Amino acid sequence: MKGMKPEADNPAMVMDLYELTMANGYFLDKSLESTKVAFDVFFRKIPDGGGFAVFAGLEQIVDYITNLHFEKDDIDYLRSLNQFSDEFLKYLETFRFQGDVYAFEEGSIIYPNEPVITVVGNIVEAQIVETEILAQFNHQSLIATKAQRVVHAAEGRAVSDFGARRAHNNDAAVFGARACAIGGVNGTATVLAGQKFGIPVSGTMAHSWVMFYGDELTSFRKFAEKYPNNCILLVDTYDVMGSGVPNAIKVFSEMKEKGIVSRSYGIRLDSGDLAYLSKKARKALDDAGFTDAKIVISNSLDEYSITSILKQGGPVDVFGVGERMITAKSEPVFGGVYKLCAVNENGEWEPRIKISDTVEKTTNPGLKDVYRIIDEHGRAVADLITKKGEALDLSKPYHFISPERPWKKYKYENCTAKLMQKPMVVNGKRTYEPEAVSDIADRVRYQLHHEIWPEEQRFENPHLHYLDMSPDYYEMKMHMLSHS
Amino acid sequence: MKGMKPEADNPAMVMDLYELTMANGYFLDKSLESTKVAFDVFFRKIPDGGGFAVFAGLEQIVDYITNLHFEKDDIDYLRSLNQFSDEFLKYLETFRFQGDVYAFEEGSIIYPNEPVITVVGNIVEAQIVETEILAQFNHQSLIATKAQRVVHAAEGRAVSDFGARRAHNNDAAVFGARACAIGGVNGTATVLAGQKFGIPVSGTMAHSWVMFYGDELTSFRKFAEKYPNNCILLVDTYDVMGSGVPNAIKVFSEMKEKGIVSRSYGIRLDSGDLAYLSKKARKALDDAGFTDAKIVISNSLDEYSITSILKQGGPVDVFGVGERMITAKSEPVFGGVYKLCAVNENGEWEPRIKISDTVEKTTNPGLKDVYRIIDEHGRAVADLITKKGEALDLSKPYHFISPERPWKKYKYENCTAKLMQKPMVVNGKRTYEPEAVSDIADRVRYQLHHEIWPEEQRFENPHLHYLDMSPDYYEMKMHMLSHS
Repeated sequence: MKGMKPEADNPAMVMDLYELTMANGYFLDKSLESTKVAFDVFFRKIPDGGGFAVFAGLEQIVDYITNLHFEKDDIDYLRSLNQFSDEFLKYLETFRFQGDVYAFEEGSIIYPNEPVITVVGNIVEAQIVETEILAQFNHQSLIATKAQRVVHAAEGRAVSDFGARRAHNNDAAVFGARACAIGGVNGTATVLAGQKFGIPVSGTMAHSWVMFYGDELTSFRKFAEKYPNNCILLVDTYDVMGSGVPNAIKVFSEMKEKGIVSRSYGIRLDSGDLAYLSKKARKALDDAGFTDAKIVISNSLDEYSITSILKQGGPVDVFGVGERMITAKSEPVFGGVYKLCAVNENGEWEPRIKISDTVEKTTNPGLKDVYRIIDEHGRAVADLITKKGEALDLSKPYHFISPERPWKKYKYENCTAKLMQKPMVVNGKRTYEPEAVSDIADRVRYQLHHEIWPEEQRFENPHLHYLDMSPDYYEMKMHMLSHS
Repeated sequence: MKGMKPEADNPAMVMDLYELTMANGYFLDKSLESTKVAFDVFFRKIPDGGGFAVFAGLEQIVDYITNLHFEKDDIDYLRSLNQFSDEFLKYLETFRFQGDVYAFEEGSIIYPNEPVITVVGNIVEAQIVETEILAQFNHQSLIATKAQRVVHAAEGRAVSDFGARRAHNNDAAVFGARACAIGGVNGTATVLAGQKFGIPVSGTMAHSWVMFYGDELTSFRKFAEKYPNNCILLVDTYDVMGSGVPNAIKVFSEMKEKGIVSRSYGIRLDSGDLAYLSKKARKALDDAGFTDAKIVISNSLDEYSITSILKQGGPVDVFGVGERMITAKSEPVFGGVYKLCAVNENGEWEPRIKISDTVEKTTNPGLKDVYRIIDEHGRAVADLITKKGEALDLSKPYHFISPERPWKKYKYENCTAKLMQKPMVVNGKRTYEPEAVSDIADRVRYQLHHEIWPEEQRFENPHLHYLDMSPDYYEMKMHMLSHS
């Protein structure tokens, strides 16, 4: 039994045991030199009935893969389980991932059933990275997707992440804050996320500040003294309109009398009916001449309550969003999976398929390319899967297959195609510079403004993006299905 | 912008910025020597309409508090925010938590509105530990509580945690596995959780094993060769009853012919109607003479689906529970809060209260003791809050106040009282040895078998445990409310 020693933990060991059980089996059974495999990462269902998801977590996946190794302690522990061959444990001593990782750029808008990440390597290295790739992909894409919904609901008003205390432990707070920023959230309260990723940090005061001084007015004065330029006073400790807002106005008046011009001042509401109270508080502040005082609200907010508060005319400047964003409370699981799609044992890639009851749930076999098809107005009309390396000529009308309606004759006209996967790791080496979180967030914003149909961005019954197939790819898949 | 360097992160920085903003303010304003405060950690609502929660996370809280410090990098970052005084940043350079932490033992059954943890210290040290205490308390208590429900539903059958890939990042996988074990789960698939906490690790095979070999029968034979003593074959890659189970039976027969007596063998079902398929598979295995073959099932299980499968007579031996336990999907937020309850500025403790619309939501002010009241049969009939150090004599009938029905005359007769909070950290030093996770799990099990009413353990409309008050404590609280 050891205490918590986060600095000593090896992320390589955040792995389902069966990855190693299978890897040991493959290792004993096959030549790793001549046996290559490909796994696709994809998800099947968009959370909350939305029209798209936001891909996040790539940086941590690449960092994990390129640093993956086992320490002596780890190997000793594995040996103690009496399940692994000595040869395999010896192999792990000097193990390094030497395969390739292809992926969409981080911050890409993603849709169900397309390979967002593809890992190509020997069967051991490609198998054992499954758990951690999925954990990062699922967690960060979940939170980035949820955060984007919250930002969308806020209609241009600022959103700040207040979630650390309700996050599922430290990594969920820190990488969750990162994912929130990728989804468009303006800042975080979590200091380490600011330090690590350059996300702007912000915060106001807790009820404890007011309770400590006992007297609310005194507590507000004390705060205004220390933080005249970031003076957001929490007004709901005792009685919002009875004491909180009047006391805040008194302090703002005293600042004004002293000639203090604050860069940012206002109030925070953290309980009660936030639509009603924000309107009452706004009027009181305006009547006192503090028309530029900000109103910050918090308390179990999400995209639904924000939409409703704004619909009722709540004059809110900043939404502090906590537990419901950092846990994606309405749907806290992002169902990304890692599926074997091809095996190369004799120099030839053979597709592999996992069959299910419906065409949609059956995996897409083989090595493949994914394109985003852009029309002449710059809008993404569909994504297209082709066989890997298959020629794609959009200079003339292109006939494709819609897997849900394969009998129909469809074509793309006046479109261009963007190849979505890029090599991110080649022969175990990273091939791109780490990106700033703000740049990844900009990529999300750009796509939503320019490429992604507004019809896919609404909350209710959004348009569902098409995932089409080239005739050759579709034929190959159908052939596999009918011969299985 | 830095890449992920988990080994370099300082958990001290997993903190809401406002903790430091307030701390800087207190520091400038008060003598830390002569100003002490007390904060209570409690929660208000039991997830999933249950009758109790399981307290987990204490070990990580104590580890955090006793190691809390700031590195030069951290202070440089804080200085860059231009919000903190030089004196305060200098103070942080040598900062160490030197206060006290009182808490229930880890694995205690806990109820709403009682102080599970109380932190006593100077106003800076007691304020800045808020975020991390809540993050650990909320995450691990959430998962331990959910896991206990899953274990309860499994009625003595084994439950294993398969959740890492859907956990909210690495810490959620690892500390989530720890919390699952505390809640009574028998094992985990997460290797690092086994290595770190001594939790038994287990695993079977993925669909990729079957798909890699292409031919299901070959893949099963290959697995049985390598793992004759832990030979759980995944039978749903193509067709459970059409090929999976027959192929598994063929391999078990071949093992038998070779005279191999497996310690543990059987099948895993990961899709389809698990009640129906487990019955069909059981019959086929039994008919072939493999009555000791195990049936493991997985696929989005939780306490509700397990209850339903068992009610339908599903002959299941092991439940592999993933995303719905590791994220507590049905209610993924545990609403623990950290509230100032007392301030000592002149050698005297003064209670503090946060007022709300209802008596139940108003905080319990002041320093206090919490007792669990045990009747002559060993059952916990209520918890009782008294003023700190107040004499409690249960050798004769004891009159208490029920805050929901203060007009009623209630008494405890033939009861004993257990003081629930113990000193865990005194003057910044840990006062107990870290406990093995298995010992903490035993504590949970003991209480549920011996102390906690079965009526509190049912899922539907459980009996709600009473939180009573001594007459003196109640009078003090009412006095504060009427004078606020």
